[in-house]
Amino acid sequence: MFADGVMAIAITLLVLEIHVPQVEAGQSLARALAHQWPSYVAYVTSFLTIGIVWVNHHRMFKLISRSNHTFLMINIAFLMVIAFMPFPTALVASYVRQRHEVRTAALFYGGTMILLALMFNAVWTYASRGHRLLVDGLDPESIRRGTASYRKGPVIYAAITLIALVNPYVSLALFVVLAAYWLLPSSGPG
Amino acid sequence: MFADGVMAIAITLLVLEIHVPQVEAGQSLARALAHQWPSYVAYVTSFLTIGIVWVNHHRMFKLISRSNHTFLMINIAFLMVIAFMPFPTALVASYVRQRHEVRTAALFYGGTMILLALMFNAVWTYASRGHRLLVDGLDPESIRRGTASYRKGPVIYAAITLIALVNPYVSLALFVVLAAYWLLPSSGPG
Amino acid sequence: MFADGVMAIAITLLVLEIHVPQVEAGQSLARALAHQWPSYVAYVTSFLTIGIVWVNHHRMFKLISRSNHTFLMINIAFLMVIAFMPFPTALVASYVRQRHEVRTAALFYGGTMILLALMFNAVWTYASRGHRLLVDGLDPESIRRGTASYRKGPVIYAAITLIALVNPYVSLALFVVLAAYWLLPSSGPG
Amino acid sequence: MFADGVMAIAITLLVLEIHVPQVEAGQSLARALAHQWPSYVAYVTSFLTIGIVWVNHHRMFKLISRSNHTFLMINIAFLMVIAFMPFPTALVASYVRQRHEVRTAALFYGGTMILLALMFNAVWTYASRGHRLLVDGLDPESIRRGTASYRKGPVIYAAITLIALVNPYVSLALFVVLAAYWLLPSSGPG
Repeated sequence: MFADGVMAIAITLLVLEIHVPQVEAGQSLARALAHQWPSYVAYVTSFLTIGIVWVNHHRMFKLISRSNHTFLMINIAFLMVIAFMPFPTALVASYVRQRHEVRTAALFYGGTMILLALMFNAVWTYASRGHRLLVDGLDPESIRRGTASYRKGPVIYAAITLIALVNPYVSLALFVVLAAYWLLPSSGPG
Repeated sequence: MFADGVMAIAITLLVLEIHVPQVEAGQSLARALAHQWPSYVAYVTSFLTIGIVWVNHHRMFKLISRSNHTFLMINIAFLMVIAFMPFPTALVASYVRQRHEVRTAALFYGGTMILLALMFNAVWTYASRGHRLLVDGLDPESIRRGTASYRKGPVIYAAITLIALVNPYVSLALFVVLAAYWLLPSSGPG
Repeated sequence: MFADGVMAIAITLLVLEIHVPQVEAGQSLARALAHQWPSYVAYVTSFLTIGIVWVNHHRMFKLISRSNHTFLMINIAFLMVIAFMPFPTALVASYVRQRHEVRTAALFYGGTMILLALMFNAVWTYASRGHRLLVDGLDPESIRRGTASYRKGPVIYAAITLIALVNPYVSLALFVVLAAYWLLPSSGPG
Repeated sequence: MFADGVMAIAITLLVLEIHVPQVEAGQSLARALAHQWPSYVAYVTSFLTIGIVWVNHHRMFKLISRSNHTFLMINIAFLMVIAFMPFPTALVASYVRQRHEVRTAALFYGGTMILLALMFNAVWTYASRGHRLLVDGLDPESIRRGTASYRKGPVIYAAITLIALVNPYVSLALFVVLAAYWLLPSSGPG
């Protein structure tokens, strides 16, 4: 419940990073609105990313029936990364046009995504190791498949982040594509 | 639950777009407060709009008993538009007095409303097509009536938005009137 | 549920109106923090006010077992006033020191409080009239007592607001006292 | 439920105090991001602190089965301190580098933490005194242990706050260490 609340709030705060443009006489509001397209793309990308994380988190928690102090603490650390997302989102939207700084912004965004995927794996690994907190009678094969699927997340995000070293625009475009890909029917979790 | 949270947050964030006016010596605070009436009207209009969408969403979900990955993704896309509402609301409030730019602001607001109505229809269409996710034993006639009623939304919003091309003030006034109209007893959903 | 969410968010957004003071060289941060005491008092007053409204709203809803379209719409209008509270709170905190403008700010705050109490009564009146939406087997005497108690709210707030015409500081102090009074054991609802 | 909502929102609002740095030509975004490390540390510290308070609050409420007006009011006062946390967090992050003002900021932060621990104790003391609101059949020994454990909170925070009089940096570092310490398995509540 608390986790649902934090994710719902983090996802909704993303819009606060989109600012009403201040247009001076002689300038066009339509152009100013079009000019800040990176803010809209960043909004959509981060919204879909948090959304898919929420769906996967929800799906994971259907398999978990118990809890303990350590597990709660790992979840709080995971939520801490989710709730941080509005900051790297705003960072990328602000610097995507500054050719000298876009790489830094992309690496920062990618680093946050890697951390998010690692924390997601930490939650699952702690709960599933030795069947610690899982519901009874769970098929070992489906646990293995879950683990394998979640493990792909940090690898994919690390690969996309590393691409920023070569070309930050390609890296950012891949983050957008990945978020859109998840929208497709029956694609796996991140 | 997650959807309820996002709507509750988006509706409450609307107030953050109303700023305390900075009054200099010799100016009147009362006048400054009165002068920013567009902010209050925009707040009320968007609040009622999100409120009615929430009521209709709630009503719709009473008819839905199942879920799947695609349906969750469509819902996230729908919430993405709801959570975006504070931005076009602030945009209209900021530019309603600038005669050269109010049309752009009205079209942007209207465009968001059309998108919202389309996403609302997408949620319903996916759930109801072939009785995919609906509760058992639902009257086909009531499904048809729901579909017909929801389909009116994008048409009405598109009509009001197009009016902005001729006169943006009439268009914005109609958005206000429409939101107020929904407050009336037993008027249909949007 | 939705109402709980909106009230929880509105109450938590109040802190965003307290700003970190910018202290220049030679100035004292301690003094700057002390100087913005009106922000803290406004925060506490509005927090307690929304808190007591939540408690009373919760208590009221224990007596209500049904709902309909009109009732939902009245509740949304009520929540619209609750969610507006951060604005008059920030307004009073900003202008309490400007002798020429504090009256306007106090009247605006008081006006919002009157509206809040009126909407609270509207929710109750609609639900209880002719026993429309109440739980079965409710004692008519306790309904009458509830109605009488809620009716006091707008009268008290109107009285305090009118005092601002004579002396806005007395009026604001009474709003603070009233909020603190509710903290006391077994004092009635507002 | 309301308490969960307020804590989820307060914890998520913390990120709004981290601002995208404005870098001018010739300056490095990477350096600017690194330079605002106090904001990240403050975010992590306050996030973990609210997180652990939530875990303890949740654990406490498993032992409480009844409620009354006074108890609700004490809880609202407790939530008022939780919801205030984003302000002292931003204050410390803003002034940690200004040697003349960091003491004031540390004392303000510490004072809020003491108040938080005191309110947490007030909630527990009211509920547990004379077994007032506790679930039936609770072991008196476990109540005593809970009380003793919660009582340590204000003492620890007061000690760390007083250290700020001698050296504010040591004091702030201890707040960070304490928050991290709680992450460890099976450490007690604050």
